[in-house]
Amino acid sequence: MAKLVFIRHGQSQWNLSNQFTGWVDVDLSEEGVKQAQNAGHLLQEEGIDFDQAYTSVLTRAIKTLHYALEGCGQLWVPEEKTWRLNERHYGALQGLNKEETADKYGEEQVHIWRRSYDTLPPLLSADDEGSAAQDRRYADLDPRAIPGGENLKVTLERVIPFWEDKIAPDLIAGKNVIIAAHGNSLRALTKYIEDISDADIMDVEMATGQPVVYDLDSQLKIVNKKKLG
Amino acid sequence: MAKLVFIRHGQSQWNLSNQFTGWVDVDLSEEGVKQAQNAGHLLQEEGIDFDQAYTSVLTRAIKTLHYALEGCGQLWVPEEKTWRLNERHYGALQGLNKEETADKYGEEQVHIWRRSYDTLPPLLSADDEGSAAQDRRYADLDPRAIPGGENLKVTLERVIPFWEDKIAPDLIAGKNVIIAAHGNSLRALTKYIEDISDADIMDVEMATGQPVVYDLDSQLKIVNKKKLG
Repeated sequence: MAKLVFIRHGQSQWNLSNQFTGWVDVDLSEEGVKQAQNAGHLLQEEGIDFDQAYTSVLTRAIKTLHYALEGCGQLWVPEEKTWRLNERHYGALQGLNKEETADKYGEEQVHIWRRSYDTLPPLLSADDEGSAAQDRRYADLDPRAIPGGENLKVTLERVIPFWEDKIAPDLIAGKNVIIAAHGNSLRALTKYIEDISDADIMDVEMATGQPVVYDLDSQLKIVNKKKLG
Repeated sequence: MAKLVFIRHGQSQWNLSNQFTGWVDVDLSEEGVKQAQNAGHLLQEEGIDFDQAYTSVLTRAIKTLHYALEGCGQLWVPEEKTWRLNERHYGALQGLNKEETADKYGEEQVHIWRRSYDTLPPLLSADDEGSAAQDRRYADLDPRAIPGGENLKVTLERVIPFWEDKIAPDLIAGKNVIIAAHGNSLRALTKYIEDISDADIMDVEMATGQPVVYDLDSQLKIVNKKKLG
């Protein structure tokens, strides 16, 4: 038996200003910091002893992990950051205000971009300003692996290799794992481990800063699931 | 050419209360947080692009690293925590007030414990309260490797394998490395890379929160050394 904890990062500056964020490296808001600290206290009360932590290469998830681990006295737990746990890349919509985008493209189109499992947003090209191709943190990545925009399907396809290579082996070995990540990378993992359909997954919401705790057996079957707080 | 940055953690609670700390997991003081944040700003001004970060498994060093990396916008840099970068273990002196210890054992004895290169402090045994043998973060370590107390010589002997296995290969590969650690684990590294004698190293002081920047060639010869701030 192993425990797996998901935490969606606390509120970010751009959650506040209602902008499409994706891979843009926006910081937590003050409220987001409080949510992450509160997650730490909830984990402390729950008394889980972690063996391994994973997060994305985006500041808002990394800081959420650090506040959460510090809150339960386990900042020393090994931590690995990976682009594979990044938020869904929102392509050319990144940085745009959601309302203004709806005014420009229509509510219906924006709804499809936000809620369709397999429709891609307008794409960024590698030489567009703000492309991840120009960001040093992705310098070791095959340029063909750097997205210009993702839907949840594509997000899932780049998250699952990390699940298979790192997270699943830890859990099978009985290690307790904490993952601080994003609405859509966690949605991808949730879809995969709970076997949720393409249609239903889009309605699954992850509350910011609320730890979700799974008990998994050695075959990675879910024995229990609960939300803290 | 590669850059190597040392940062001794900011002031801790027990620096303030003048207690022997060693492997006890004491947090930063408010002043220590400010020092670590300031280190981040100094690194930002210096404009170093880091490739790898290393720290100990003690909260005060880990938090110093996080504040420093956040301050220079590089919280996403890969980070590895290791007991090999821990502070010198102060044995049975851990937790004692330095003045009270001097009253009890004499100034001269305390001076020797603090400043001799190869005199061990009174040792803790594995079943003593506060022994690292009872701390989950060292559960994977061979019990024979868990110290009951260390001098700088013994500290150096367990720091250098990590230098050889991880830090040196990074630097030889041209990676820029940041290490947030402790007065004595950094003193051990400084002694080793600067080839300082056993007698002289005890007089080398590392200021808390002040980054020390080395430029090293591919043979790990020091081309330049400077302190920021």
